[in-house]
Amino acid sequence: MEIDGTPYRTIWVEEPGKSVGIIDQTKLPHRFETVTLTSMDDAAHAISEMLVRGAPLIGATAAYGIALAVNEDASDAGLAAAYKALYATRPTAVNLRWALDQMQEVLGDLPETDRAAKAWSRAAEICDDDVEISKNIGRHGLKIIEALAAGKATGEPVNILTHCNAGWLATVDWGTATAPIYMAYEKGIDVHVWVDETRPRNQGASLTAWELGRHGVKHTLIADNTGGHLMQHGLVDLCIVGTDRTTATGDVCNKIGTYLKALAAHDNDVPFYVALPSTTIDWTVSDGVREIPIEQRGGTELTRIAGRLADGSVAEVDIAPEGVAVRNDAFDVTPARLVTGLITERGTCPASEEGLRQLFEKS
Amino acid sequence: MEIDGTPYRTIWVEEPGKSVGIIDQTKLPHRFETVTLTSMDDAAHAISEMLVRGAPLIGATAAYGIALAVNEDASDAGLAAAYKALYATRPTAVNLRWALDQMQEVLGDLPETDRAAKAWSRAAEICDDDVEISKNIGRHGLKIIEALAAGKATGEPVNILTHCNAGWLATVDWGTATAPIYMAYEKGIDVHVWVDETRPRNQGASLTAWELGRHGVKHTLIADNTGGHLMQHGLVDLCIVGTDRTTATGDVCNKIGTYLKALAAHDNDVPFYVALPSTTIDWTVSDGVREIPIEQRGGTELTRIAGRLADGSVAEVDIAPEGVAVRNDAFDVTPARLVTGLITERGTCPASEEGLRQLFEKS
Repeated sequence: MEIDGTPYRTIWVEEPGKSVGIIDQTKLPHRFETVTLTSMDDAAHAISEMLVRGAPLIGATAAYGIALAVNEDASDAGLAAAYKALYATRPTAVNLRWALDQMQEVLGDLPETDRAAKAWSRAAEICDDDVEISKNIGRHGLKIIEALAAGKATGEPVNILTHCNAGWLATVDWGTATAPIYMAYEKGIDVHVWVDETRPRNQGASLTAWELGRHGVKHTLIADNTGGHLMQHGLVDLCIVGTDRTTATGDVCNKIGTYLKALAAHDNDVPFYVALPSTTIDWTVSDGVREIPIEQRGGTELTRIAGRLADGSVAEVDIAPEGVAVRNDAFDVTPARLVTGLITERGTCPASEEGLRQLFEKS
Repeated sequence: MEIDGTPYRTIWVEEPGKSVGIIDQTKLPHRFETVTLTSMDDAAHAISEMLVRGAPLIGATAAYGIALAVNEDASDAGLAAAYKALYATRPTAVNLRWALDQMQEVLGDLPETDRAAKAWSRAAEICDDDVEISKNIGRHGLKIIEALAAGKATGEPVNILTHCNAGWLATVDWGTATAPIYMAYEKGIDVHVWVDETRPRNQGASLTAWELGRHGVKHTLIADNTGGHLMQHGLVDLCIVGTDRTTATGDVCNKIGTYLKALAAHDNDVPFYVALPSTTIDWTVSDGVREIPIEQRGGTELTRIAGRLADGSVAEVDIAPEGVAVRNDAFDVTPARLVTGLITERGTCPASEEGLRQLFEKS
């Protein structure tokens, strides 16, 4: 998407076959800085320190990490070491492993001298494929927004609520939950986005509000507590969120707090859609609430927050009583019964085993 | 309640007939500081700058504000001026007007020379009456906690979730939502409180976690997004929240986000109680969602946050993209259908017109 008029992806080749550029997302929304990755270590650091985040972007960065590694050492041993080092950066990220396996598969049987060229071309393909998936999610989701726009009077925007960042910053471009929104915006549909702040890590305030703003999409930041009230008063036409893991039955495991918004949407007859690449579907899980283990993260994510001081410098402050006990569950599970539909790269389906099976043959 | 072993009220007479002490709540949880009020202006400043907050405590402070005013000028004109000045500090606070009217009523017909003594004694009565109301709410709510504790195995606490601060810091002592919790704690019942951070003003993190901690009650701070997930996993036995305004039909208007917790409680069969002094009941309103106007406050409450820097000093930081649009609704309305019961100073009743009428003759 665009940053103040300049088109960007979240990851790009800087010097062909030599270096890769990324946005340092840890600096957002306070500073826009890009970083050049020239080694496998650079790529590993970018993933582990969360300069890049979001499953698809982590995968893409790992793929380029292998390409950078092959530049240094194209041997089988070198490849194995790079796989191991990159895999260790965020071992729970499904796309990370998938991308590394893709690279291993195309490189393993090649002579060492052919590996570098292939690694760079395959990494580029992985990025392009991800963009294509996002665009297809966008095209399918766009129909939902178009239908809502058709029922609006002139000058009344379609109000869409989203939680966390399933935006272009989490993918290579377009995003998942945001793809339909950007497509609607490109088509000239009057859209306005309610952006949940998304405590404790504030990805809504830091990333979603930033990326929508830079691209020019109308949006308003709200506390996570606010969405239900807005729905009670008819101020939300549609919710679209992402998902980290989708069960075979259509339950979705997404950023903590998603479930509360789904309950409010259900209580107020607001359509609640989840946008996802089919890679997030876990066909082995049928009861999300019972079966999906939820990562508990450190309490400091809640009690310490970064922001700009009056002089413009960035500092962290502690906002809670010293030594307070904190519980910080990173995700929750929204049961399929609260989900209006799943927007995938193959189309939109009901959040159910049947719905998913109609789009994807169960493998 | 106690602060690290020392009993406190939120407001107290320092030098009889001369000065009043309060806790500067704007400094919490970073610093515990008390402030001495020696003039009506001091009292007005304490209310308008939110050194004191919470409807009952605002009322108590206004009452002492009149007493301080009478010390300076006991004439009818002086009294009228003090009423006006204090009323202007937070004109939407129902208890503020009520307390001022109480003072006016007892002082208006007295000779000027008798007014000072009466003002100080009536202000003290208003405080004592408030404590008695809180204690009665506590006694009635305690029964609910006792019943839950009876069903628990040894070593298993009763887990209670609360939102915002309806604690002793909002009243003169005991609090409303917290009164049953403190009573249970005093009786030796094993209670543990999930404290919602309560964005955007963070009263849960700043005040509720602080007061529970200082008194010694077990608690854990959570993001507002977390409660639904905890309920899905059986980790919440009971919700108790406060209310700023209760309709004749049992709808409750409380801090933004209360509605989302009530939805989650309903979805998971967790009892959801609202604790309130009967002064919050507005017998003229029957449909809370439609009829109660919701205050919209400045966006800076969401985007700017105070905390401790590494050197221990307190600073404010801006956490969102510069210039972002913000909507900041201060309250939401939870429909009576989601409320298990209302805990009042006269007993606990169903959240319905009938329930309320059984306890309170409609006036």
